Amino acid sequence: MRTSQYLLSTLKETPASAEVISHQLMLRAGLVRNVASGLYTWLPTGLKVLRKVENIVREEMERAGALEVLMPMVQPADLWEESGRWEDYGPELLRLKDRHDRAFVLGPTHEEVITKLVANEINSYKQLPLNLFQIQTKFRDEIRPRFGVMRGREFLMKDAYSFHLGEECLKKTYQAMFDAYCRIFDRLGLDYRPVIADTGSIGGEASHEFHVLADSGEDDIAFSDGSDFAANVEKAEALAPTGERPAATQALSEIATPKVRTIEDLAKFLSLDAANTVKTLLVLGEATKEHEAPIVALVLRGDHQLNEVKAENLAKIASPLTFATEEQILAVIGCNAGSIGPVGLDIDVIVDRSAAHLADFVCGANKNDMHLTGVNWERDTQNYSVSDLRNVVAGDPSPCGQGNIEIKRGIEVGHIFQLGEKYAQTMNCGVLTEAGKNQILTMGCYGIGVSRIVAAAIEQNHDKYGIKWPAAIAPYQVAVVPMNMAKSARVKETAEALYEQLQTAGIEVIFDDRKERPGVMFADHELMGTPLLLVIGERNLDNQEIEVKNRITGEKSMLAISDVMSLFA
Amino acid sequence: MRTSQYLLSTLKETPASAEVISHQLMLRAGLVRNVASGLYTWLPTGLKVLRKVENIVREEMERAGALEVLMPMVQPADLWEESGRWEDYGPELLRLKDRHDRAFVLGPTHEEVITKLVANEINSYKQLPLNLFQIQTKFRDEIRPRFGVMRGREFLMKDAYSFHLGEECLKKTYQAMFDAYCRIFDRLGLDYRPVIADTGSIGGEASHEFHVLADSGEDDIAFSDGSDFAANVEKAEALAPTGERPAATQALSEIATPKVRTIEDLAKFLSLDAANTVKTLLVLGEATKEHEAPIVALVLRGDHQLNEVKAENLAKIASPLTFATEEQILAVIGCNAGSIGPVGLDIDVIVDRSAAHLADFVCGANKNDMHLTGVNWERDTQNYSVSDLRNVVAGDPSPCGQGNIEIKRGIEVGHIFQLGEKYAQTMNCGVLTEAGKNQILTMGCYGIGVSRIVAAAIEQNHDKYGIKWPAAIAPYQVAVVPMNMAKSARVKETAEALYEQLQTAGIEVIFDDRKERPGVMFADHELMGTPLLLVIGERNLDNQEIEVKNRITGEKSMLAISDVMSLFA
Repeated sequence: MRTSQYLLSTLKETPASAEVISHQLMLRAGLVRNVASGLYTWLPTGLKVLRKVENIVREEMERAGALEVLMPMVQPADLWEESGRWEDYGPELLRLKDRHDRAFVLGPTHEEVITKLVANEINSYKQLPLNLFQIQTKFRDEIRPRFGVMRGREFLMKDAYSFHLGEECLKKTYQAMFDAYCRIFDRLGLDYRPVIADTGSIGGEASHEFHVLADSGEDDIAFSDGSDFAANVEKAEALAPTGERPAATQALSEIATPKVRTIEDLAKFLSLDAANTVKTLLVLGEATKEHEAPIVALVLRGDHQLNEVKAENLAKIASPLTFATEEQILAVIGCNAGSIGPVGLDIDVIVDRSAAHLADFVCGANKNDMHLTGVNWERDTQNYSVSDLRNVVAGDPSPCGQGNIEIKRGIEVGHIFQLGEKYAQTMNCGVLTEAGKNQILTMGCYGIGVSRIVAAAIEQNHDKYGIKWPAAIAPYQVAVVPMNMAKSARVKETAEALYEQLQTAGIEVIFDDRKERPGVMFADHELMGTPLLLVIGERNLDNQEIEVKNRITGEKSMLAISDVMSLFA
Repeated sequence: MRTSQYLLSTLKETPASAEVISHQLMLRAGLVRNVASGLYTWLPTGLKVLRKVENIVREEMERAGALEVLMPMVQPADLWEESGRWEDYGPELLRLKDRHDRAFVLGPTHEEVITKLVANEINSYKQLPLNLFQIQTKFRDEIRPRFGVMRGREFLMKDAYSFHLGEECLKKTYQAMFDAYCRIFDRLGLDYRPVIADTGSIGGEASHEFHVLADSGEDDIAFSDGSDFAANVEKAEALAPTGERPAATQALSEIATPKVRTIEDLAKFLSLDAANTVKTLLVLGEATKEHEAPIVALVLRGDHQLNEVKAENLAKIASPLTFATEEQILAVIGCNAGSIGPVGLDIDVIVDRSAAHLADFVCGANKNDMHLTGVNWERDTQNYSVSDLRNVVAGDPSPCGQGNIEIKRGIEVGHIFQLGEKYAQTMNCGVLTEAGKNQILTMGCYGIGVSRIVAAAIEQNHDKYGIKWPAAIAPYQVAVVPMNMAKSARVKETAEALYEQLQTAGIEVIFDDRKERPGVMFADHELMGTPLLLVIGERNLDNQEIEVKNRITGEKSMLAISDVMSLFA
């Protein structure tokens, strides 16, 4: 491709609207342009990258035996009513009406369409297992689209759905998809981790997320430094401290703590470590037919954070997790939120494992501006149970039993689920078994954010000059950059010949034939992240040489023109 | 691909819902499934065909220098307000609102988005010409979706838009696109014709449609039997008859024609050819500031059909063409519609060229149940003008001057337009010229109905057994069909080895490893249209031979197994 016949669209300035580096670089390098909030046009350079990601995903899905289909973006509402998600799905589901006033949605996902298809097409166990995928445009009406294509509204996604006659078969395909995802991200050249994930609102049992590691990631990932273990912080178990709880050494006493509202205040006021205090959070419990939701106390060490997912997964706790209001706290406990403690509480008390291992700790006295010191479990309060309630922190022992936890940030680019019978049951998707009985199918689903990968790759691979593409997804493998071509026939001839030679060899080459200053050309190609630059200068031609710049390593070297193909061997 | 691991989804029965053969065969051969009115899921076999069409289109667009982009399906309403089409576009434009109550459309076409993009990105004449294309999912809210993917609501389209500094440059790209389209349809292996087309509501000046010829086509195409000339019947000029008009030989006389209402009635009543009569149609003329729309008379030979496009393109005639009501006719002429004639009319009269060449003809007398015979132009009425008003018919001299017209039916699969400044003007899309002045760009646009091509290919290539794919878009090139594999180890081994060999050679092969009767297997592969069947039978293996069936020609022949690769040489 010649730049003179190309839509380069690079920008010198960083657009003020772009918050994250990938969004800034995607605009500056001419990969995308904004059409409306969360809606983008992919320019030629960006689309090349997107298609490369798409092709790697497709090849590995096919290698894993999945069959490609293409479902419509516009889906009839009745399918969503049948699955129950017409009601359950929030306002991210864009609902619309056609000219005949019939209700439709813009598909954010395709469980309904595919389950209905399989219910109609498959009737015998002989046709199973089946794994169908598509690479298709989806729409999610984000309340606040941001970070460019990372959290856009219209995006390209690979979604796959597998159908099985039972759990065991599902687990095999799930593992095959896990392996395929690893191959995909390996081939993309990204530093990634599969992590154990919460299954969230989509339902089902086992689940892994695939994260591209990047400091700008929205998710915290907990790793073991001694094994392969990785989990979303939401899902990583915080083990109980080992050994016996220390024995009590202090007497219980009540002290005045005027104006102390937070753990930070308390630790400062008493000159002690927050790890020797506990905080008590009040949330709503499960309502029953007879009783409205009771208040339940959650007790954590002062320096730990509540893990809301762990809390709401407890049987006694209402889901979604709902904190008690100031009014409810005052009515039930008789003090404000900053003075609550587990001693003498007449409600269910659930204590985090680490908090339960403390001795001689400090907590609220359930009276305003008062705290208790020298508190000890069992001696001072017996009315509690113990659970894992907190987020793991760096240095915690890994729940896998090997090594300690490190925390890194990640960008979720894939997610695989064991869905079970959730959709198959409600949409009556079953087959005749070998014994001639109807059996509801067991499903898995497997997503990859194709357009998001482009942004995630940039978050992980850039420097102050621009993008540093992994070779597998670079829009061009090499740029031919002649210096002052207009003034030197020899430079022009060499550049043209080199371009011709590389093109003929099937190498993706961009030839900068603009009449621009060298600095402008270098800046553009560094911004665009082309892995190799071949610089053709008048002086070096005396030796029949060109300069080779490696965008990734920064190395520069001279190369005989006749050896140019050795770069691509 | 093994059929045992595939989603074959063939149907024995023709679904009652499918009217046209392509829709029937696409359902029966397992290419698509209906999700809702005009919305389809592409199954693996169908998607393979769709992707092959898509790839050929992409390759030829790139060869012609066009750059691929990808625009969003959901477009903000303000762009459509800016172009004026928010008001002008009918209910086929699906309008919707997001969660913040902002208005959007589902894009049926992308002139607005691309013109805005180019207005923002391009500022110098040096960056021109530019031709941008995408292959993207579109939505058109058809009032009555039908014929399967032929007239669906969500469909895959290639749309391209070119930008130029003037007419001359546009014409070059238009010609390049014309040539690229010919290469595309040549490579697809379809019998097609580029035809001169009406530009319709999209506006602009020159336009060609590309039609796949098929008896079931919705459009009438007029061809010359003596040249390359082809035009949509809407657009084909009917030449004036050559030679002098015959001299008058009869006297004008008025005759009673009780209950005669139609030309057919009249010809029968008077025992003469409809070609010796004229019919007079009353339509609305152009309204002016001072006067409401007058009534205008259009006069055609009794055996000819009015061409509404030609009529409404006349300056005197209102657009869209509007016929006068019975009330208006009675008020202005004083008789009913079946008795009107051009003699003595006090309104504008426009006579078709062929009607104007008649002598001694019959027409209405402008009195109920009365006609005139022996009518002659100029002698009996002078108050008229002559225009081309009618559809051409088979046998007419071709307007190109060579040969005579034939009429065939076609399916429109491509359309190219010279748009001119229509969008660039309203959306202020201009650049600085070499002289430093701002100049509005001239545009072309170029569409191909990618999903429609799949259906059109079937309409043109099928027999009573199923589809006969052109090789370039067949989902599989060859099927390996073993006879009673379960009973013969030798058949199984040969089939497996052959499958392995073909796959390794990169040939798209489907291996029918189901335990089905031969008849079922043959029927499925004939239905699916695989060009070659390799039939492996126990008896032929004695001679180390297989049977080769050619789906297109119907030929069967024996082939030594060792020669199998010669089929793909």
